[in-house]
Amino acid sequence: MARFFMAGTNIGGGMAYVRGRDAEHIKVLRLRPGEDVVICDGQGTDYKCRLIKSEAEEAELEVLEVKPCTAEPSVDVTVLCGLPKGSDRTDYILQKSVEAGAKEIMFFDCERCVAKPDEPERKLERWQRIAEEAAKQTGRGIIPQVSWAGKFADMLNVAVKKDLGLFLYETGDRERLDIVLEANKSIKTAAVITGPEGGFEKYEADLARTVGLHICSMGERILRCETAPIVALTAVMYATGNLS
Amino acid sequence: MARFFMAGTNIGGGMAYVRGRDAEHIKVLRLRPGEDVVICDGQGTDYKCRLIKSEAEEAELEVLEVKPCTAEPSVDVTVLCGLPKGSDRTDYILQKSVEAGAKEIMFFDCERCVAKPDEPERKLERWQRIAEEAAKQTGRGIIPQVSWAGKFADMLNVAVKKDLGLFLYETGDRERLDIVLEANKSIKTAAVITGPEGGFEKYEADLARTVGLHICSMGERILRCETAPIVALTAVMYATGNLS
Repeated sequence: MARFFMAGTNIGGGMAYVRGRDAEHIKVLRLRPGEDVVICDGQGTDYKCRLIKSEAEEAELEVLEVKPCTAEPSVDVTVLCGLPKGSDRTDYILQKSVEAGAKEIMFFDCERCVAKPDEPERKLERWQRIAEEAAKQTGRGIIPQVSWAGKFADMLNVAVKKDLGLFLYETGDRERLDIVLEANKSIKTAAVITGPEGGFEKYEADLARTVGLHICSMGERILRCETAPIVALTAVMYATGNLS
Repeated sequence: MARFFMAGTNIGGGMAYVRGRDAEHIKVLRLRPGEDVVICDGQGTDYKCRLIKSEAEEAELEVLEVKPCTAEPSVDVTVLCGLPKGSDRTDYILQKSVEAGAKEIMFFDCERCVAKPDEPERKLERWQRIAEEAAKQTGRGIIPQVSWAGKFADMLNVAVKKDLGLFLYETGDRERLDIVLEANKSIKTAAVITGPEGGFEKYEADLARTVGLHICSMGERILRCETAPIVALTAVMYATGNLS
């Protein structure tokens, strides 16, 4: 069943009114009166609705059922990635992180980032749209937020505020990811931090350790920068009982 | 350090001789005499070598150190995927499965496969090359094998021979993936089975159940056909202690 996100205020009196891009989308999908769709308020509530009327500017629907969306994990994971070089990789991280259950995705700048956007904020609109499309397709109850974290130190500042901060690093003195996660099964918030193409500098890992993050290993296999966040996020979901 | 795979027979008397495509690759990478590379015999042994001479047809290297490759997981996982429509998705499944630690990847044909290759064998050479490239980059000790499993029933025949067969399915009566994995931590071989774009037909899931596979859920989030195998494979690696 097709899913859409909309502001809760457009639903009232047993009816739902969809406007703008989503109204067009309903038109493009050639949904016909009598067909059902799910409208999600983006805060964890699903409205199962039947289409009454579909026009380019507005679609009118009858609300059949209101229920909590069960697709949201019990842990809010923030995925923090050193900005990769190509937009292919950025897009991939966004789409797959949303599928795998991230609450929010943030990119940051660090020593080995080749891509140095002057105005990363300009990309946010496109990034957010990718997250929204993935959220629809995956049946998420929220649209994960995409944002720009700033410099490495700004990223650390975000990560330390979470119940658990996992800094994935390929070398040196590290904790086993599974042991850290087994000891933290009841966390409510977590940060998963991965590097850009060339990984992190040693001083960056030292800094992350100093502020209290767990420097973790994911084994001997070297994961690409776009693969590591998905694998780490999946491990968190699995360990906290959110993959079953 | 650059990694190459080569047949064990090209190494002998403290020297290694690389020919063909890999010799060209060493040339293209502009590796110079005195630089070190790792040559892997594809069966779990790494040879750390120093380049003596690099020509288009042959590179000559001195073997400095011989040691087992520690990147191979303790469990051999066969990833079995209903053939997706686009080659983008096929390539993605191959690359990411190799990164995440698969021993082999097999595609099969089932009811909802849109892609119906007359001669899937013709694609094997390309698929195998993608697996080899990913194995090099990831630092794997073997080149995971890519093959065509045939029809759905042929695929079941492969899966039932493994210590544990996990059939990922989005609906109906299913076991929790984490509970199944916790009860099977010491497996040596496993099969992870995921569907094409439209998923599996109910009769296919029933058939899988009948032959003894575990019909498993990965939660309420609907994963794309190219994402599901990576997430499931990662869960197996995590549960068996191969992600740390």
